[in-house]
Amino acid sequence: MISTKILRPSVSIFGIAKTCSMSSRAPPKALLQDMVVPPRQLFGPGPSNMADSIAETQSKNLLGHLHPEFVQIMGDVRLGLQYIFKTENKYTFAVSGTGHSGMECAMVNLLEPGDKFLVVEIGLWGQRAADLANRMGIEVKKISAPHGKAVPVEDIQKAIAEYKPNLVFVCQGDSSTGVAQPLETIGDACREHGALFLVDTVASLGGTPFDADALKVDCVYSATQKVLNAPPGLAPISFSDRAIEKIRNRKQRVASFYFDALELGNYWGCDGELKRYHHTAPISTVYALRAALSAIAKEGIDESIQRHKDNSQVLYAALKNHGLEPFVEDEKLRLPCLTTVKVPEGIDWKDVAGKMLTNGVEIAGGLGATVGKIWRIGTFGINSNKTKIENVVELLSKSINETRMYCFINLYYF
Amino acid sequence: MISTKILRPSVSIFGIAKTCSMSSRAPPKALLQDMVVPPRQLFGPGPSNMADSIAETQSKNLLGHLHPEFVQIMGDVRLGLQYIFKTENKYTFAVSGTGHSGMECAMVNLLEPGDKFLVVEIGLWGQRAADLANRMGIEVKKISAPHGKAVPVEDIQKAIAEYKPNLVFVCQGDSSTGVAQPLETIGDACREHGALFLVDTVASLGGTPFDADALKVDCVYSATQKVLNAPPGLAPISFSDRAIEKIRNRKQRVASFYFDALELGNYWGCDGELKRYHHTAPISTVYALRAALSAIAKEGIDESIQRHKDNSQVLYAALKNHGLEPFVEDEKLRLPCLTTVKVPEGIDWKDVAGKMLTNGVEIAGGLGATVGKIWRIGTFGINSNKTKIENVVELLSKSINETRMYCFINLYYF
Repeated sequence: MISTKILRPSVSIFGIAKTCSMSSRAPPKALLQDMVVPPRQLFGPGPSNMADSIAETQSKNLLGHLHPEFVQIMGDVRLGLQYIFKTENKYTFAVSGTGHSGMECAMVNLLEPGDKFLVVEIGLWGQRAADLANRMGIEVKKISAPHGKAVPVEDIQKAIAEYKPNLVFVCQGDSSTGVAQPLETIGDACREHGALFLVDTVASLGGTPFDADALKVDCVYSATQKVLNAPPGLAPISFSDRAIEKIRNRKQRVASFYFDALELGNYWGCDGELKRYHHTAPISTVYALRAALSAIAKEGIDESIQRHKDNSQVLYAALKNHGLEPFVEDEKLRLPCLTTVKVPEGIDWKDVAGKMLTNGVEIAGGLGATVGKIWRIGTFGINSNKTKIENVVELLSKSINETRMYCFINLYYF
Repeated sequence: MISTKILRPSVSIFGIAKTCSMSSRAPPKALLQDMVVPPRQLFGPGPSNMADSIAETQSKNLLGHLHPEFVQIMGDVRLGLQYIFKTENKYTFAVSGTGHSGMECAMVNLLEPGDKFLVVEIGLWGQRAADLANRMGIEVKKISAPHGKAVPVEDIQKAIAEYKPNLVFVCQGDSSTGVAQPLETIGDACREHGALFLVDTVASLGGTPFDADALKVDCVYSATQKVLNAPPGLAPISFSDRAIEKIRNRKQRVASFYFDALELGNYWGCDGELKRYHHTAPISTVYALRAALSAIAKEGIDESIQRHKDNSQVLYAALKNHGLEPFVEDEKLRLPCLTTVKVPEGIDWKDVAGKMLTNGVEIAGGLGATVGKIWRIGTFGINSNKTKIENVVELLSKSINETRMYCFINLYYF
């Protein structure tokens, strides 16, 4: 930054007139220009497009974070989250951070030194959970599936019985592979062997069946910018009574204040006690989450799930039509709202995704170990729509063919 | 939540017709209604009112968190933050959380087991930093001032020389007391004795002079919902080269992934390396922060600071006019953008604040140890305006008199 004294014209704003500037550094020129935000269809792994009914809430005037009307909105959000998680858990609220902060909030509360942690790894998110535990000094055991497959629940049950972990992590829908990990019976095994059951539903919630209470889940978190079509910035989370009991009986205090579940739960009105100031909630993002939950309440959570399932069939058919193949071979293990597609031999995934972006449409490449091998097509919320999906696959196919043509020309003429 | 099978009319949205609902739980009734967000003048300690130019960016369509246009916006934000912090620090970015997440990000990166931490305590925020260190298992020494006063810098220098801490925490503007702590010479003492210098500017940045580089600050964080008039949800932060060197040489990994400064710095483009995916930034809130920085760049950071200073005089005069007294007696130690006011004898602060809120104007009571003793009047950004300030004090005075009248009636007639 250039450090220089600049003179600027006389301005009279806020009722105070000044004849010259006192700022000793020049303001960055880029900030004197308007921001460029081109329209874009977001068919990557998230953020998805905001629904209009959600976008308009974002410009509403702010309320104070303890004003009665805002407390009411927080209460509505809690009810909506209980509805979509399918839980009666009192400690159901949203962490003031993006999806990953949900993982961090869950783990810093549910793990303490000396604990054993079992991670079911079907892609990047299991690795991330294991890495975080490593940072926290927690012993980790991983049970993994090859990319594109799930871990058989029998293997998970066996690992729980043998390793006797304090906490078991499973990502229901891994956005790096497009796999939906079956969850049935894992909760029972956890209860039998004294473990808590933690599920990441960041990419799956609202797009594939999930029932926290029926599955005996002790902690589940998600994100706002996938099926919910809200902007990123909050991580919905829910803790069972068992989980809260473990937190209350910790030997060491939670090493974070920002993510302390009991403090957060108090601020969100989960414990029935007098609300204490904890932090200043991201007011606008909470408005947006309420609007997103309102939209899903109007459609019905099960209807949303069914629509994502039906439209995944539309996507599979369109891919087949254009000679493209899903990466996850077993259809039962495919995440309906995020489909991974094999990159055909000789094609550079990046060229194709770049061409599509030039046309205003985002799809993404792989993540972690799947980079170069797959594209990821997210069909979240309002983007789970037959016409939109068919158009995206049409453009994908056209972009692949253009890339092929370009390779051919390059090969033969240069 | 009531668990019941409900029938709903035939709906045809998203191109899929359904004849009956499958949702096994009824959606919460509250979410079928519109959200209520009454207009409000926010003269508490934050959030402040959003400026229109900021509010309108919040409804803009989302971009992907790695799209070139969004990367450009992040770059603009970095320049703007360097401008308002007055620093050349490469590692200048925003944490995806509210103000407190800035404190947490600073401390988890700059402290590790075995370190000594000196906290300058002039109100709640010093206590909060000490509490967080306690959670992290770090040895803490506090040097405190009575509420309403600052700690003399000579005492801080002496404490640094004697205690030889690894990190020194100072809150520049404590929102629980309204005190502005002088910062001069503390940075020199830190360098002399091998400590890093951490400053909280959540309530002060843009409202009172601050120059990170001239003050030899090693880490500073702030928030978006005070002088910047943006919605809460991001914590601007900056690390000096000395701070980054200490982080690079840590013996133990940072116990958080979400707050890992080197990972965040890479995602924000601070290290000149290829960007790695870290988390999905809160896109809309980053738009808002860019718009807020654009507004402050157009006014000039020093002009903003001067305006807050000038208008604090307007506030002091208005208070005097109505027989009210600032809580911080030494005018030099008053934070210009957040003024604390003594609650007159016999008056219930809550009744008065409640009356004002009914009239659509927020001022706040005390926080922590100052509850019941003071009101807090924030005059942040666009709310630092002569007419608005005079109106708020007028309404405060009127509300006090109405409360007095009510007490009098109660006393004599019941």
